[in-house]
This record gives sequence, structure tokens and C-alpha cells, in this order.
Amino acid sequence: MTILPGKALVAQGGGPTAVINQSLVGVVLEARKFPEIRRVYGARHGVRGILNEDFVDLTQATTHNLEQVAQTPASALGSTRDKPDEDYCGKLFDVLQAHEIRYFFYVGGNDSSDTCRIVNEQANRAGYELRTVHVPKTIDNDLVGTDHCPGYGSAAKFVAQAFAGCNEDNRALPGVYVAVVMGRHAGFLTAASALAKKFPDDGPHLVYLPERAFDPEKFIADVESVYARYGRCIVAVSEGVQDKDGKPIMTTLAQGAVEKDAHGNVQLSGTGALGDLLAGYVKSHTKIKRVRADTLGYLQRSFLGCVSEVDQREAREVGEKAVQYAAWHNIDGSVAMNRVGDYAIEYKLIKLEEVAAKTKHMPAAFINEAGNGITPAFLAYARPLVGNLATTDRIVAPPVKKILNRG
Amino acid sequence: MTILPGKALVAQGGGPTAVINQSLVGVVLEARKFPEIRRVYGARHGVRGILNEDFVDLTQATTHNLEQVAQTPASALGSTRDKPDEDYCGKLFDVLQAHEIRYFFYVGGNDSSDTCRIVNEQANRAGYELRTVHVPKTIDNDLVGTDHCPGYGSAAKFVAQAFAGCNEDNRALPGVYVAVVMGRHAGFLTAASALAKKFPDDGPHLVYLPERAFDPEKFIADVESVYARYGRCIVAVSEGVQDKDGKPIMTTLAQGAVEKDAHGNVQLSGTGALGDLLAGYVKSHTKIKRVRADTLGYLQRSFLGCVSEVDQREAREVGEKAVQYAAWHNIDGSVAMNRVGDYAIEYKLIKLEEVAAKTKHMPAAFINEAGNGITPAFLAYARPLVGNLATTDRIVAPPVKKILNRG
Repeated sequence: MTILPGKALVAQGGGPTAVINQSLVGVVLEARKFPEIRRVYGARHGVRGILNEDFVDLTQATTHNLEQVAQTPASALGSTRDKPDEDYCGKLFDVLQAHEIRYFFYVGGNDSSDTCRIVNEQANRAGYELRTVHVPKTIDNDLVGTDHCPGYGSAAKFVAQAFAGCNEDNRALPGVYVAVVMGRHAGFLTAASALAKKFPDDGPHLVYLPERAFDPEKFIADVESVYARYGRCIVAVSEGVQDKDGKPIMTTLAQGAVEKDAHGNVQLSGTGALGDLLAGYVKSHTKIKRVRADTLGYLQRSFLGCVSEVDQREAREVGEKAVQYAAWHNIDGSVAMNRVGDYAIEYKLIKLEEVAAKTKHMPAAFINEAGNGITPAFLAYARPLVGNLATTDRIVAPPVKKILNRG
Repeated sequence: MTILPGKALVAQGGGPTAVINQSLVGVVLEARKFPEIRRVYGARHGVRGILNEDFVDLTQATTHNLEQVAQTPASALGSTRDKPDEDYCGKLFDVLQAHEIRYFFYVGGNDSSDTCRIVNEQANRAGYELRTVHVPKTIDNDLVGTDHCPGYGSAAKFVAQAFAGCNEDNRALPGVYVAVVMGRHAGFLTAASALAKKFPDDGPHLVYLPERAFDPEKFIADVESVYARYGRCIVAVSEGVQDKDGKPIMTTLAQGAVEKDAHGNVQLSGTGALGDLLAGYVKSHTKIKRVRADTLGYLQRSFLGCVSEVDQREAREVGEKAVQYAAWHNIDGSVAMNRVGDYAIEYKLIKLEEVAAKTKHMPAAFINEAGNGITPAFLAYARPLVGNLATTDRIVAPPVKKILNRG
């Protein structure tokens, strides 16, 4: 088999994750093994860096430097929110040709895979030999065709340990605690809030996902029922929850029950508005006094020092496999993962058009019947992905007999 | 020396920390070594549990269970926000007498030390032999008489690593990022946002503390100046920032520039309002498009799996020392820490009235002249407290010469 000679280019797109640099480094170190691949370039800030020929020569980065970068959260090459159309992709293709790039690796979500698809088609039409491989990443876990996405496991671990800690906080000072979780229109990350539950009365007690219509009245009834039972209530809410008409719940609440809110624009991340609105709604619709809201925010994807070792390894491997498919097997596509047993991964390459611009949602089997919690099937699915979870414990000691009995 | 025979009681008050259970377990294990201390009781939910005689017998907890609890964030016995007055303390004293409690250990902040002080005075007046020792904890680091407080180091580590990660995120997708940090009226925790900075252009670029008046106009000028220099800007803001008249800045902004805000009550924690108001203020007063806000929230004190090993050890030791002072030395007070060299700790016992209901602030030497950042003196002070910090790295690789030069 002949390996196509030429240069390789790697870029990172979309929202960062805690392990997206593992994939970058997997691509770079693997590509540097092939003498036919004369240079490995990195584009600064994704497709925008390609457009501007803003490249660094990663062939000249040290292994130590790359291994340190692999341990660093967020996209070390920089990222972009640009979503290239045919025209934009044409310009990218011009640059790839000018620099004799024969291998293009784009680490990103479903928008990035769509860019790969368009560029790849343009190369095919022009008869220019170009291997294009999409390397999956997303904390939302919403890519189709793969068991799960690199980036999800680490974010899921962060969310699980955040809720496990806040559960202890809420046991110490009881009340209602609402925390808003990222994930856009997929509920996987919010569902991960339940992964570190240990005792039957541990929170989160209620989990609201974008896959089920959110009904504010039902929400209040749910909270009151949990509160009556445990004297406290922890709620995990996806930033993407919608009402039965598909409208973001932030809009519904801001216009209805909570008057005069300043948060006009519906911006899913980077604001505490949804959490505050939900807390305000609980305060105004129940007699519960202590109601608090957190929005887990950018820490979910970029906190330094909370990573799933399983996720870390898989993110590295999808990068390595991307290069192997392109170089040894001479094929284009998106790297995907098959789950084998409990628990191993087989890698495969699927067609770009299978992934491009599509969104995977939580399957019905992962959501409980009431639409306010998750099922054991979800726990079985997600548990291997987060690696070692920290654990909590409670004091086990007998009560002391009262003497004064004044209460 | 004779050791006073009787029972010991331990309780936890105020906001939880990641290591407050280390102090609890330090007290319990140390107290169980003394045959004269016949029982070690724990009160559920602080002084409220004492009032209600809601005790568990920790003499009967296993060592394994206690060691597991020590690793768990938040107050395992439960906490309370009750601030007892003379009358309330009188009732507490009745309960202590009825149960023949001769040793009372209260793990908490300055309110808890005030409770210790009142109960101790009542015992003295009644001629009842009672050893009362306050065991310090607070993530705010605002207790006087001690170099620092157990609980601060772990929260500081969380904040430092949160900012280090979000700095990478912001480098990947540039813009303005504002994150609101706990700490009430002391700036120590917000200042910790700078502890994991590595490269000169790393964020946070601006740090606003409650010790300096916050001027919205100056804030905008600061942000624009940083943005002009780096093309991005990371801001750490204390939840307790105030304007020049001592009014919470949330009130100032909500009434002025940002109209019709629904967040009526000024509640420092458990809401994203301050972050959202500041982000909105930047959007409306500059031409910067990408502005995001996070509020680090309860994760700062209760996230599971981010702890300073130095803080963990010291929290354990203050619990052990509390028992030793009471049993061997027969004295009351609050356990405090002296810093020796770089870096060791000497423990001492200071008078309860020295600590009670007082608040320590950031010394002027820790704050830069412009009032929007911290000094090397602060870094030297805080660095030993957070233990091992995770670190980030950047790609070091030469740029590639442009060919098309279209830009």
C-alpha cells in the first residue's frame, strides 16, 4: 500500500472540552510517525485560521510540550464559531491546495463534520487527492453514529461530582437547590447529575431534560412532593428545556410568572437567568423559604483538574485512529466508537454525511415515565464513561436518648 | 494534671467547606483517646440540634466510617444559620448540663465563635466546669487572630483551577468573561482567582474586591483597556463588591444602567444576578460582542474531588488541637494558626472574644494601587495554602509562512 505524500493540517472547532487537546495531540503524534507526511500544521482558531493561513508548524513542537498541552483543557489551537458555507469552504480548499495539504483533520462537533463534508466534496469534484477526517468531540454527547463522544465523560464527571458535593451542602443546610446544566438540546449531560448518587435520598431528586416538555405547574408539584418527603429538594435542569410548544422555558417564565425581567435575549449559556427564574418561580409558588440556584457554566467544559481517565484515553485514541484511517486505509469520514461488552471500545470510520449537522437525543429508555428523572439504563450507559468517581459518606452512629425533651 | 471527666459534644455551624468534616473527625478521634471523656456526642444541625437534644453518639461510629466522612465535603452533622442570643445560649447551656457535657467543640466561623463565647460565660457564671473551644472554618478566610482559616485553601484551589480552565476557554473563543466569586465582605477567595496564572497574558486580568469601592465607569475603562491589549478580558468579581457609599453593587447596577430587573432582594450567593448585571453592563457600554458571565456558586465550598491536601491536613489538626487544649491544658478559646517560615504552622489557642463576631479583610499590601488586581505579596501568602495546583500549557511551535496572503 502506498501512503499519499503531502502535509497534514489539524484544527479545532466549536466549544472546547476538557480533553479536546488529547485528540489534537493524538493526531499530531501519530501523523509525525509517517515519513510521507512531511509537515503537520495546526490552524489557529479553526476554519478561520485556515482562511487566513494562520498556521503553526507542529512538526517542530516538542513531545513534552505536546503532552503538557494534552493535559490542558480547552482548544490549544484556538476555536471558532464560524459555520462555513460552500463559498467559505471553497476558500478553505484554495488554501489547502496552496499549502499542499493532503490530510485534513478537524476536531469538532456536528457543525465541524459538516465543514469536513463540504471541503471533501469540493476536493473530490476538483480531482484533488485530499483525505478528510472528522475527529468527534462534544460535551453534549449529541453526535449520531457513535456510542458516545469524547469530551462527554469528563464533563459528565464534573457534573456528577458537582451535584454529589452540592447534595451534601443541601443536606447540611436544607432547602431547594436548582442547578442548570449545559448540553444544548440533548439531555445527556444533565442526566449525568445522577451518576454519583449513593443513598436513596441523595439528590438530584428531579432531572428535567430537553427531550421532555417542561411544564411549570408540574415542576412545582414535583418540587413540593420531594420537599414533603425529604425536607429538601435538588433539581437538575438542562439549559435547553422547552415548553410543550418547543419554546425555551426561559422565555415562558420571563413573560409569565416572573415579571419585568431584564434578560431579554434567550442565550443558553453564559448567563444565570434560567436558574434564577426557576428559583424565583419556586419562591413565588410555594411556601419554601430557602431556594438557591446555580448555573454550572463554563466550568463544565473547562475546569482544570477534573477529567475522566477513560475519556482522556478515548480522546487520544480517536485522534490517532483518524490519522491511521487516512494514511493506512486512504479513506475519509468521521471516527466513531462502538461499545463492546462492559466495557471496551472498537473504533470505526463512518461516512461524513451520517454525522454532519445532525443531533442525537437521549433515547426514551433513558428517561423515566414521569419525565422528571433518569432510568437505570442511563446509569449503565454512562457509568463507564466517567472513570473513577469520588465518593461521599455519612455518619453512621446511634441517636442519643433525650433528657429534657423540651421540643 | 487531672483530666476533667465528662462527655464531649461537637457541632458544626455556618456555611459548609470541603474540609470541615476533617475538623469534625479530628475532634472525634482525638477525644476518643481520653478514657475520662466517656462519650463523644455530635449535635445535628449545629446549635439547633443542641436546643433539641438531637445528638448522635460518635463514640460508636467506626474509624473507617469517620475517615470516609472526613473525605466528604460539607457538614456531615448538618449545619444551621441560627445566631444564638443570650436567651438561646441559656437553653443550650441547660442541655449541656443535663447531658453532663464538659467539653464543647463548635466548628464554625465568627458567628460560631460568638456562640462559644456566650455559652462559656454562662458556664463560668453558673460555676459549671465546661471547656469550650471554637474550631475555625470558613472559605471566606475572614477570621481575625489566625494566619488563615481551614476551608479557605480548598475553596481557593477550586477558584484558581476554575479560572485557569476558563482562561484557556477564553483564549480559544475570545471575549469578555466575568465570574463572580464568594467571600462575603472579604476578598481573599476572589483574589485566589489569580493563583494558577502562568503566562503574562493569562487571566484573570482584572480582580475586584470588596475592600475597594467598585466604580462602574472605571470598570468599563479597565475592561476596554485589557481588551484592546489582548483581544479578550477575564474578570474576577467578589460577590461582596460595593460602591463608594458601601451599597452592594448589584443594587447600584439594577437601579441604574440595567432597568427593570426582577432580582429585587440583594442576596449575595445562590443567584446569578450580579454576574448577569455586570455582563449586561459591559454589553451596553462597549462594542464588545461576546460577553459571558458565570457565578461559581456552591461548588466553591462543596465540589466533590477538589481539595487542598495542605488544607485537609490543617483542618484535621485544628480539630485535634482543640481537644488537646481542652483536655491537657484545661483552657477555653479559639484554635488559631501561626505561619512559620515557608511553610509550617504552629497552633495556638486565642481568647474567644478576640475572634467572636469580627471580620478580617484583605490587607492593603495584597491589593494593587489601581484597586483592580492583587500583588505578589498576596500570591506569596496564599500559594502554600492551596497545595498542588494543576497546571496548563500552550503550544510552542513556529508560525508557517503564508502563501496566498489574501487577508
